[in-house]
Order: sequence, then structure tokens, then C-alpha cells
Amino acid sequence: MNNLTIALDVMGGDKGPLITIPAAVMAVEHLPSLTLILCGDKHTIEQHLKRCNASNHPRLRIQHTTQVVTMCEKPSLAMRSKKDSSMRVAINLVDEEKAQACVSAGNTGALFATAHFVLKTLPGVERPALISSLPTRDQDKHVFMLDLGANVFCHAEVLYQFGLMGAVMAEQVDGLNKPRVALLNMGEEDIKGSDHIKLAAAQLAENPDINYVGFVEGNDIFSNKADVIVCDGFVGNVALKTCEGVANLVFEKVKEIFENNVVAKILGRFLAPTLKKLFKSLNPDQYNGASLIGLRGIVVKSHGNANSQAFFTAIMEAVKEVERQVPIKITDKLEQGLNLRP
Amino acid sequence: MNNLTIALDVMGGDKGPLITIPAAVMAVEHLPSLTLILCGDKHTIEQHLKRCNASNHPRLRIQHTTQVVTMCEKPSLAMRSKKDSSMRVAINLVDEEKAQACVSAGNTGALFATAHFVLKTLPGVERPALISSLPTRDQDKHVFMLDLGANVFCHAEVLYQFGLMGAVMAEQVDGLNKPRVALLNMGEEDIKGSDHIKLAAAQLAENPDINYVGFVEGNDIFSNKADVIVCDGFVGNVALKTCEGVANLVFEKVKEIFENNVVAKILGRFLAPTLKKLFKSLNPDQYNGASLIGLRGIVVKSHGNANSQAFFTAIMEAVKEVERQVPIKITDKLEQGLNLRP
Repeated sequence: MNNLTIALDVMGGDKGPLITIPAAVMAVEHLPSLTLILCGDKHTIEQHLKRCNASNHPRLRIQHTTQVVTMCEKPSLAMRSKKDSSMRVAINLVDEEKAQACVSAGNTGALFATAHFVLKTLPGVERPALISSLPTRDQDKHVFMLDLGANVFCHAEVLYQFGLMGAVMAEQVDGLNKPRVALLNMGEEDIKGSDHIKLAAAQLAENPDINYVGFVEGNDIFSNKADVIVCDGFVGNVALKTCEGVANLVFEKVKEIFENNVVAKILGRFLAPTLKKLFKSLNPDQYNGASLIGLRGIVVKSHGNANSQAFFTAIMEAVKEVERQVPIKITDKLEQGLNLRP
Repeated sequence: MNNLTIALDVMGGDKGPLITIPAAVMAVEHLPSLTLILCGDKHTIEQHLKRCNASNHPRLRIQHTTQVVTMCEKPSLAMRSKKDSSMRVAINLVDEEKAQACVSAGNTGALFATAHFVLKTLPGVERPALISSLPTRDQDKHVFMLDLGANVFCHAEVLYQFGLMGAVMAEQVDGLNKPRVALLNMGEEDIKGSDHIKLAAAQLAENPDINYVGFVEGNDIFSNKADVIVCDGFVGNVALKTCEGVANLVFEKVKEIFENNVVAKILGRFLAPTLKKLFKSLNPDQYNGASLIGLRGIVVKSHGNANSQAFFTAIMEAVKEVERQVPIKITDKLEQGLNLRP
């Protein structure tokens, strides 16, 4: 395996270096070919490295920055006024080809706006998208869903391109052959939904390189009917967060049931780890990293509330995308799609 | 209590008279002031009434019809070609003021199209909406959500009116004073979402008669932050069905956990009824009736897969809306809203 360099925004997220530094140490120990550039306050980083017994690790380089983008900061303002933030510098390193990808648990809006501004979209890509994988009823099978909130509204061409980009992720990251691509709609029948969804459906169906399987509804996100589900960012964001909301509700209610019953209480303790794992996987956003795709560089977003394990997973996601050269494959797929058009 | 007459489409839904007739018998036994008009094939209805020991019940009248709208029929076609369907006749009875409301478990699209065509919207109402209540983390507290799929896209004025109509439902059906009205968005900040959502937010905030509490995200649908949540039909449909999908997924996974463990297996059986009740409440669409509001008559939709208990609940929902005169209250609220405008 070739040497890899990834830039981390270690100050981002609710807990910052407290979780990002242990994750970074885990990652370099896990992968001997990996070098990480830790972007953030030098003094703070050194303290946390010391706590992890990783001071002066040869593959953990510090890039001192003086600013931090806060979680509630307005994206446009963060972009304009924080040019030496840990987030901006991590993205700049990708742009300058000093890193092959960057990972942040910071403010999603600011990350998206800054990455879009600095890295720009790949040739032919109309809009970048936020993509993540969700669990399905079939063990070990998940589904890629995009856009999860990078764009409020997407017209037909954008949805069509998301289908192609999602297929690349499923092929490259999951190694699937002819991944099933579906559009999220309010019914499975051809007549359902808005005009732009119907047009995107026609475009996807026309492309012989895409295994388009039609419309799916919200209840089928998890039923393994598709490997890639495409929707606009508003709908994707609502679906993802509804999923999280239901999981939390059920978790609380199940806990109540266990607590209000002596026998169940004992059983509950016994089953707690398995149940917790299940509910965690239903907060996909928190469990896995989400990727910004369609840009000229690889940007992975970890949840603001991520723990070290989740941030480690996000770093590994970035590694995978670098190894499989996702951006180049997206360009190829889009060019192919354009050449196929009449 | 005054005498009430409600028309039932007894042929609609996956199971038709098998569930609608027992529900009708339960309803008239439960409510002595209630008369039901059973619309459907006379012979079939008589057979089912006999099975329920309710032949010649004085408050169960049969209205013979010769056609049935199937579950997969195209709404526009059903509307045009099935003028003697059990669904159409039940709606006609409301239009002719022979019934004060109608209830159907049939094809949602056809019900919506036909009810809209026959009954027309209330004065000033731009679009009718599908509304239902969902559970929240707080026992005995639920939230009304609209639109759940009657309209693909809704501009600002329509969303604003949905806020007013939802508030009427919460006031009249749940007896709430100053119900909290929120808009579903992809973030809580004012700058988030589309222009039409921001405009609807401004309109709701300007109306002193509405307790507008701002934007909520998908994960807050169930957190009792609002009594009414407004969104367009596409988003509402996806959110509702995602909720159903997650509930089914968790139910299957929890079942798996119980089945793969001997101790858990025994205790699982013991906890099954409580768990089942919980997951059922997360298929709100199946559990409660949904109402089409904004029309000149009351139309309640029961789930296609409803059982007798669910269809009975839908009849009782219709009774409540008749007693509280929901359509008149909606007209009043809209007029008040218009008068308040500068």
C-alpha cells in the first residue's frame, strides 16, 4: 500500500482534541502507511498527544492554527473571517496536495461551504452532495443515501448526477458490481412525485451503465431494495434525522419497559450492549462518517458529537476513498454518462 | 349528544368488509347516538353483518353500490370511471348532507382526488392536507403532522394555511390552548431551508393568533417540542414512512436478539405484548386514522392494512371532528388570519 497523508481538523466537533487526538493515534497505529497532519492549536495538541503517550510520533505532524470554527457559527461568516481555522487549513492542505483527504467533526455548513469554495467541484459536477451509509434489515448490507443536506433543492440533472456519484461510492467503497440505484419518492408508481424526480428517473433509466431500479418510499430505505438512494438535501436531511429521532424514541421506550419490570430489568442489563449497538447503528450520521462528494478533493465529515471510535471510522473512510480514487472515478462516470447521451 | 350519521366505504382497504363491518358494529354499540351508512355490495354486507350477529341493526343502514376502487388503481381513472364505487358514494353522501363525515381504508390517492373533486375546498383554503398524529417521548402527548402526502410541493401561503389548519385540529380534537406550531426544516437556524419555508415562517410569526415556535428538525418530531408540525406532502410522506421503516427494522432486530438467546427468548415472550404495542404506535398511519382537512366535509382515511380496531379508531376520529365542527373552525381561523393581515 502506498503512503497516505490525511489532514485532520482536530479542533472541530463538540469535544475537539479530546476525541480527535486519541482517534488519530489509533489510526496511525492501525495503518503503518498513514501519516496524519493534525491541524489545530499546537500547545493543546501537544498536551493531548502526551496524554495518549504519542508525543513526537513520526507520523503525527502538527500544523499550528490560530482559529476555531464554532458549531453554531454562520457558514458564510466562518468562511470569510476564519482563514486560519483548523478546518480551513485542513481543507487548504488538500487543495495544495499536501494531504490526499481531510476529516472534520466541525460545523457541517461551514465545512461544506469552505470545502466547496476552496476545492471546487469536479469537471461537469453541478453540485457536491453529502453521502453516508445506513443499515438495512440484512446484516452486513447497507445503503448509500445522498444528498443528506448539502443542497436544499435539487433539479433533475443534479439528482441524475447524484445517482452516478452514489453508484461510484457503492462500486469503489463497497466493491459492488452494478449497484442498484433508486430515487426516493412518495410512491413507487411512475406517476408519483414532482416533475424533476420523474425527469431524473427517465435520465437514470436511459443510462445503460446505471442499474436503475425505480422509486422507493421512506419505509424501504432499510429494506435492502437498493444500494444507492437519491433524494434532494432537504428530504435526505429530514429522513436521516427522523431515523435518528425514532431510534432515540424507541430506545427510551424500551428502556422504560425494562425499568418498570423486575424480570425485564435483569434481562435489560444482560442485553444492554447488543441493544445499544443496534440503536447506535440507527444514528448513522453519528456512527459512520459522511462524505462530501463531487469535489476535487476528499472531505469526510464525522458527527459533531462523535466519540474517538466514530472519528477513527471517519478517518478510515477517508483512507478508503483515497485508495479507491473516488474523485477520479466520479469524473470518469460522469464523462461516460455525458458521452452516452444522444 | 346529537345524533350523528357517518358514511363508511366498507369495500375499501386490503381486507374490505372483513374488518370494516366488525368495526362498524363495534362503533354503533360504543356510541348510541351514532348511525352508520354502510356503502358497498348489499349481499356481501348482509353476509358479514350476519357473521357479526348484527343483521337488521337499526343504526346500520346499507347503501348498495356496484363498483370498488382497487388499491393500485390510478386516482384520476378511479374518479372518472367509478361513479358508483363504495368510496365515491360515501363521499357523495357527505356532499348531499346525508352523512356528516365519511371514513375509508381505500386507495389514498383516489380518496384524495375524489373527495377534493366532490366536496371542494373550504372558502379561502388553497389546498387540502392529509394530517395525522404521531407519538412523542411524553406519554399521552402526541403531535399533529401535515401534510403527509396530499400535495407534492407547497408554496409559502399553503404552508402558512397548513399551520392554521393544524392549530384548529390541535385545539378542537385535542382541546389544546394555544398549540405550539412549528415548521419542519433541515436546521433550526433562521437562515436554513428554502425561501418558501422562510416566508411561511415569517407569516406564521406575524399572526398573533398562532403560537409559532420556529423550525424543528426530523429528530425533534417525537420530542414534544411542538403540537403541530407543518411540511409539504413529499417531505411529510417520506418522514412518516421512514418512521415506519425504522420501527419495522428495530422490531425485526430486537426479535432477532431475543431469538438468538435462550434466556432472552423466554423473557421476550413475556415482554412481547408491550413491545408490540410500542412498535404499532410507531406505524401511526396504521394505528390512527389520518384526516383530509381543508375540505367542505369531513373525510377520514384509515390505513389500507388496518384491522377492525384501527378502523374503529378512524370512525371515532370522524365522530370527534363532526362534534367539534372542525371545518367551520378552520374557516373561522383562516378568516381571522386574513383579517389580521396588513
